[in-house]
Amino acid sequence: MENILFDYLAKYISLNADEKKAIIDLDIFKQYKKGTLLLKEGQFSDNGYFVIKGCIRCFYMIDGIEKTTAFYTEAESLEPLCKINKKPSDYYLSCVEDSILIVANSEMEQIIFRKFPKFETLCRVLSEELLAQTITNFDDFKMATPEQRYIHLCRTRPDLLQRVPQYQIASFLGMTAQSLSRLRNRLVDKSGNKM
Amino acid sequence: MENILFDYLAKYISLNADEKKAIIDLDIFKQYKKGTLLLKEGQFSDNGYFVIKGCIRCFYMIDGIEKTTAFYTEAESLEPLCKINKKPSDYYLSCVEDSILIVANSEMEQIIFRKFPKFETLCRVLSEELLAQTITNFDDFKMATPEQRYIHLCRTRPDLLQRVPQYQIASFLGMTAQSLSRLRNRLVDKSGNKM
Repeated sequence: MENILFDYLAKYISLNADEKKAIIDLDIFKQYKKGTLLLKEGQFSDNGYFVIKGCIRCFYMIDGIEKTTAFYTEAESLEPLCKINKKPSDYYLSCVEDSILIVANSEMEQIIFRKFPKFETLCRVLSEELLAQTITNFDDFKMATPEQRYIHLCRTRPDLLQRVPQYQIASFLGMTAQSLSRLRNRLVDKSGNKM
Repeated sequence: MENILFDYLAKYISLNADEKKAIIDLDIFKQYKKGTLLLKEGQFSDNGYFVIKGCIRCFYMIDGIEKTTAFYTEAESLEPLCKINKKPSDYYLSCVEDSILIVANSEMEQIIFRKFPKFETLCRVLSEELLAQTITNFDDFKMATPEQRYIHLCRTRPDLLQRVPQYQIASFLGMTAQSLSRLRNRLVDKSGNKM
């Protein structure tokens, strides 16, 4: 289980045995059943997440309807806004599947940063990368038609289409389930294959 | 000029005279004329920006048409994706107005981080804040109608409407200039006041 984390981190820094042990000693690996709500609207939370296995969905409840805005799968991390701004959360986080997650709060981060300053460098680099990538995803979303967004999703995250109910995919793409269904049928007509 | 930067940083860390001098000595304050292209599609760049005064616009050229995706104004920072992933840029950055910017490359950052490690903490905190805020803006964009996006912009960044041509605002909101014009007229009809 730890190896997924350490393989991921090895792309950025090399860790010696002491440093690996310090991470493992924090007892940060947690298992959750499918459907578990990690965070609810209105709650405060100081937890950040890194997905070892499974899938976290982020959604808002708007007039009684779920609006899905993100899915986090293997080797993706998530710092909820409520952790950063210390205000109650505007959204929910739930496990779409049985999941193994790393869960770390600010206190744990401080312990590690004090002991091993290079972890702070790592977190800075990761945040900068994620920020640049998120801005690019946002740009792509703005400039694309719903059809382009769906085709892009099929190419870049094909696993999601198998793992997540279609109404959540539709919401994630900013369209209704009916629109997505019609779009998929149009693409079948064009290509002869179901996408 | 330096005071805008130091006032901004004072929200996060206190700097002594030595630390302030180290920043000033880097010679990072630059002036640019309105219309200057800071970055072009296809270019490599290692520069990050912080706006002291003025406005940077980010846009893509898609089939010969400009698609504006972001505006950066006073006390906002920007690390282009090409700086992070070392690939040619997909987009342009231009100065919408005469601007005073802080321009810093990776080498300058490393000099400061080595000399004053707390700047690395600062950059980590700022990146995490910006990341959480960008994700929230992205969520809001996905869930809002074009009318809601425009009203939200009027409330949160009213200065932009005065500073930037309407066709760029329309593109930024993900609509055509004609749609924005119709939308504004509809809002006038409703409220009796031009928004």
